[in-house]
Amino acid sequence: MSAGVQASFVIGWMLMLAGGVVFWVMSRSLPAAEKRHGVAAMSIVFIAFANYFAMALGQGHVNFNGETVFFARYTDWVLTTPILLVSLAMMATRELARIRTLLFSLVVADVYMIVTGLVGNLSSSPHNYYWWIISMVAFIAVLGMIWGPLRTEAARGPDRAGFDKLAKMLTILWLIYPLVWLIGTSGFGWLSYGVESWFYLILDVTAKVGFGYVALTAARKLKTT
Amino acid sequence: MSAGVQASFVIGWMLMLAGGVVFWVMSRSLPAAEKRHGVAAMSIVFIAFANYFAMALGQGHVNFNGETVFFARYTDWVLTTPILLVSLAMMATRELARIRTLLFSLVVADVYMIVTGLVGNLSSSPHNYYWWIISMVAFIAVLGMIWGPLRTEAARGPDRAGFDKLAKMLTILWLIYPLVWLIGTSGFGWLSYGVESWFYLILDVTAKVGFGYVALTAARKLKTT
Ligand SMILES: CC1=C(/C=C/C(C)=C/C=C/C(C)=C/C=O)C(C)(C)CCC1
Ligand SMILES: CC1=C(/C=C/C(C)=C/C=C/C(C)=C/C=O)C(C)(C)CCC1
Repeated sequence: MSAGVQASFVIGWMLMLAGGVVFWVMSRSLPAAEKRHGVAAMSIVFIAFANYFAMALGQGHVNFNGETVFFARYTDWVLTTPILLVSLAMMATRELARIRTLLFSLVVADVYMIVTGLVGNLSSSPHNYYWWIISMVAFIAVLGMIWGPLRTEAARGPDRAGFDKLAKMLTILWLIYPLVWLIGTSGFGWLSYGVESWFYLILDVTAKVGFGYVALTAARKLKTT
Repeated sequence: MSAGVQASFVIGWMLMLAGGVVFWVMSRSLPAAEKRHGVAAMSIVFIAFANYFAMALGQGHVNFNGETVFFARYTDWVLTTPILLVSLAMMATRELARIRTLLFSLVVADVYMIVTGLVGNLSSSPHNYYWWIISMVAFIAVLGMIWGPLRTEAARGPDRAGFDKLAKMLTILWLIYPLVWLIGTSGFGWLSYGVESWFYLILDVTAKVGFGYVALTAARKLKTT
């Protein structure tokens, strides 16, 4: 593992930890009914912290087929992306129970996307590209559900504008992941491990800490009805 | 991996994908409250698709003790059999929350059955037979819960006849799995890898695509109350 990769992991766990402290403070001023947003945001960054910490210690990768696979990225994503989707859903409606079928579908498609992405990372060319395509189809299904039925639900929810803002942020950030994966060491190999890991770092911090900050700020303003 | 085994996997992923498309179309005409049946059916075949696809690429097996173990069968089953049980339970009652203890017990026994089956497949004679017996006991518990408490629940549910039909179909199909396993390469070795894999293919397609088709057809006819 090169020094650049290693440095990105150390900065990663520090920023996730810092995010966790910020969210803890922000959560204290949330109305009781919206504490759940704080719990989601903290769960996400603390899970990411542990995975970055493991990678920084050299415990988050395996060498497989002559390639280094940072499996800890996937154990992070497979847990945190469902929680991010739940966060977004909590912005769409106060009663998650009402949309349980939709939420279940979102999580299934999302986990499917991450697991097939990991299998792709563990595959050599051209198999890795097949898995990328399969993962992308699941990702498109996730986006379809967000901008279709979930958005319809949000139109009747407590904060339509807040939902749209978060949904846009999520869509743009998440779309960059498969691009980095494709041009990075798991795909074409145009990026070195170092450059790739800095890209993922920026994405992870924005999609977790940035997203959580926007979500908690919006949740704080929600009227308690 | 012989050509016959390989061919069964390719046909497997194609049929699962085709099933997914059919279920997607069928789901569109489901009443909103029964969309959950479509979500379950699609989750099942798409998970099976990924596992058959991996096996077709040669990524779904390990060589262990001089034997080939297709572990991807078990990663398929451990996820899809609980969803199949949930499908059946959704035919028994509209409110799964009411039978959550029963559902939880069913899923625990079912996962136990699959995991002990995998351990058996990774064992040499006579250990494999011990695991087969343990797995069978869990399976009998699953069947007992289906024909006991779940059926009692279904008698008060929206579609008693639909439940009985699905429960019968499930029982007969599922009972063949341990037989194939016992006479196949994981047990007595009377079947070659090729014959065994075609047996499993027919079973998997019927227990997933056939079962889902019957379930969705029944769900479509349910009165929306
Ligand atoms: C579609 C696709 C992918 C998508 C990954 C995404 C969308 C990850 C999102 C991660 C987040 C948001 C993490 C933390 O906040 C992979 C697996 C890279 C590779 C295969 C194709
Ligand atoms: C009892 C028993 C088994 C049962 C397996 C079953 C019942 C599998 C069902 C799979 C389905 C229905 C898949 C997809 O639709 C094993 C693990 C073969 C071996 C040990 C004994």
